[in-house]
Amino acid sequence: MTVFITGVAGFVGTNLAAALLERGERVVGFDNFCRGSEANLAGLRTNPDFMFERVELTDIAAYRSALARAHEADPITEIWHMAANSDIPAGIADPHVDLGDTFMTTFNTLLLMREFGVGTIAFASSSAIYGDLGERPLVENIGPLFPISNYGAMKLASEAAISAAVESDLERALLFRFPNVIGVPATHGVILDFVRKLQATPGCLDVLGDGTQQKSYLHVEELVDAMLHIRDHDNARLSCYNIGAADDGVTVRFIAETVRDRVSPQAEIRYGEGNRGWVGDVPKFVYSIDKLLALGWRPKLGSAAAVRRAVDQVVEQETTQ
Amino acid sequence: MTVFITGVAGFVGTNLAAALLERGERVVGFDNFCRGSEANLAGLRTNPDFMFERVELTDIAAYRSALARAHEADPITEIWHMAANSDIPAGIADPHVDLGDTFMTTFNTLLLMREFGVGTIAFASSSAIYGDLGERPLVENIGPLFPISNYGAMKLASEAAISAAVESDLERALLFRFPNVIGVPATHGVILDFVRKLQATPGCLDVLGDGTQQKSYLHVEELVDAMLHIRDHDNARLSCYNIGAADDGVTVRFIAETVRDRVSPQAEIRYGEGNRGWVGDVPKFVYSIDKLLALGWRPKLGSAAAVRRAVDQVVEQETTQ
Repeated sequence: MTVFITGVAGFVGTNLAAALLERGERVVGFDNFCRGSEANLAGLRTNPDFMFERVELTDIAAYRSALARAHEADPITEIWHMAANSDIPAGIADPHVDLGDTFMTTFNTLLLMREFGVGTIAFASSSAIYGDLGERPLVENIGPLFPISNYGAMKLASEAAISAAVESDLERALLFRFPNVIGVPATHGVILDFVRKLQATPGCLDVLGDGTQQKSYLHVEELVDAMLHIRDHDNARLSCYNIGAADDGVTVRFIAETVRDRVSPQAEIRYGEGNRGWVGDVPKFVYSIDKLLALGWRPKLGSAAAVRRAVDQVVEQETTQ
Repeated sequence: MTVFITGVAGFVGTNLAAALLERGERVVGFDNFCRGSEANLAGLRTNPDFMFERVELTDIAAYRSALARAHEADPITEIWHMAANSDIPAGIADPHVDLGDTFMTTFNTLLLMREFGVGTIAFASSSAIYGDLGERPLVENIGPLFPISNYGAMKLASEAAISAAVESDLERALLFRFPNVIGVPATHGVILDFVRKLQATPGCLDVLGDGTQQKSYLHVEELVDAMLHIRDHDNARLSCYNIGAADDGVTVRFIAETVRDRVSPQAEIRYGEGNRGWVGDVPKFVYSIDKLLALGWRPKLGSAAAVRRAVDQVVEQETTQ
């Protein structure tokens, strides 16, 4: 088995590559180092079953020739498409960001899968495709789907393009709708923001919103474990799963206090107003993982424990850099 | 009121422009004449309240400067985005067709709405976004949405991008999910295919599939009437409506026989096998228009009467050309 990973030097990509290598599979990975980095690959580079190339996936000609080289050296049996923009506010300020990095990378990947005859894709979709459905539990077959960020829109567009490709070409597609994922290597997100803010100004922590916004969080190691469980246990041609923690989540206040206690216990936390952090940010939602539970996977950490573990790891990451 | 229409020289665009002009509104329309044509504009060109420019909407620079000229001459208050690929098999053979003509035209339109401060968009979405949900009635909030053609995928991608833009910029968006629409000027579709086939070989008509495939059909004049009814009667910031006939539809066999009886009564009709015409073609589905009925609009023609009327019009179109 040779698995190809896009965005391999990013947050999820590095953890996924490590898990696959540990299973004895070979991994070929591409990244443009836009959000991922060479430093993130340090642990992977020493493994002889890992091959890496720096490639810009929105450049179809470059992508095609790099993939041709990799495929010729070692035929690729499946593609895990993890490359995407992960900065939601950046995509709202400029829609080209998600168009290119989130959607066109998917479009080009599907195009090349057809050309090279690779039959299986696993895709990092997102709970952001659901938009704001209020208090309704977010199950996989809920509708309507009206995302409120370009990030969510281009993830939904990617799902749609994959779904159409399954009808005409692909053998198998796995759509993983990611929750809020935390852990290392952290490149963005609320924990990293808070850690950096407190390291810069240890006396106080300014929080966007009133701190009551509540979300569930999953640790990236558990996310990878869930994806591989689905790959092993689901046989549908097109599968779609919410992945997440099996609880109602924790508040922004909880995260702020956890980071404060770890980094700068004397700091004052100052809250803003409202329970939305930015345009495209959905307040408390109920994310159902019943389908995944029925497949026999259950997270070991709850949201609170995942946050505590991630805070420790992010503080270590930021301190040793 | 000056309304801007993309794809104004196409099938729906010409009918929409005529209806708006009849209401006393001014219309600015763009088209690239890829599927639309100058001939289709004949009836509109004589109206002093109609302005037209030939523009390639996937070329953002050309689109921007043409829109700037139009907007300066006469400020645009709303945009009706009807331009799209309408050839589903073409989009399956080459995904770039729907990427460019169906999705990027939407992306660029949203970009320019933001730049020019135009607040309202009405969009020609499609029942194709629903994919194949089996026997479940297709209501607007059904899920999951797994389209089975690139056409459906890029219509869903467009809806998603519009939805995100409503959250950040737009004042109002109307999403119209079109059914199978028939009438003139016909540029594609089963009626035109059958008429042309029979005119070429009057002795026989070869039909793709076994003829049992059943769909409901709406006449384009009724489609336009429904869209304007929704515009007048719905006040939500983001509205989404199925538009269609209020019946279970007619079979391909019914259409074939209606065309045969009108064009070449002695012709033999030869059916193929299976009840799908091509990849991406959904067999019989139940398209709910309950939401539209509740808003007080009801089609006057059923599917059968719409087919008979459209067959007469298409035969006349093809005979006089």
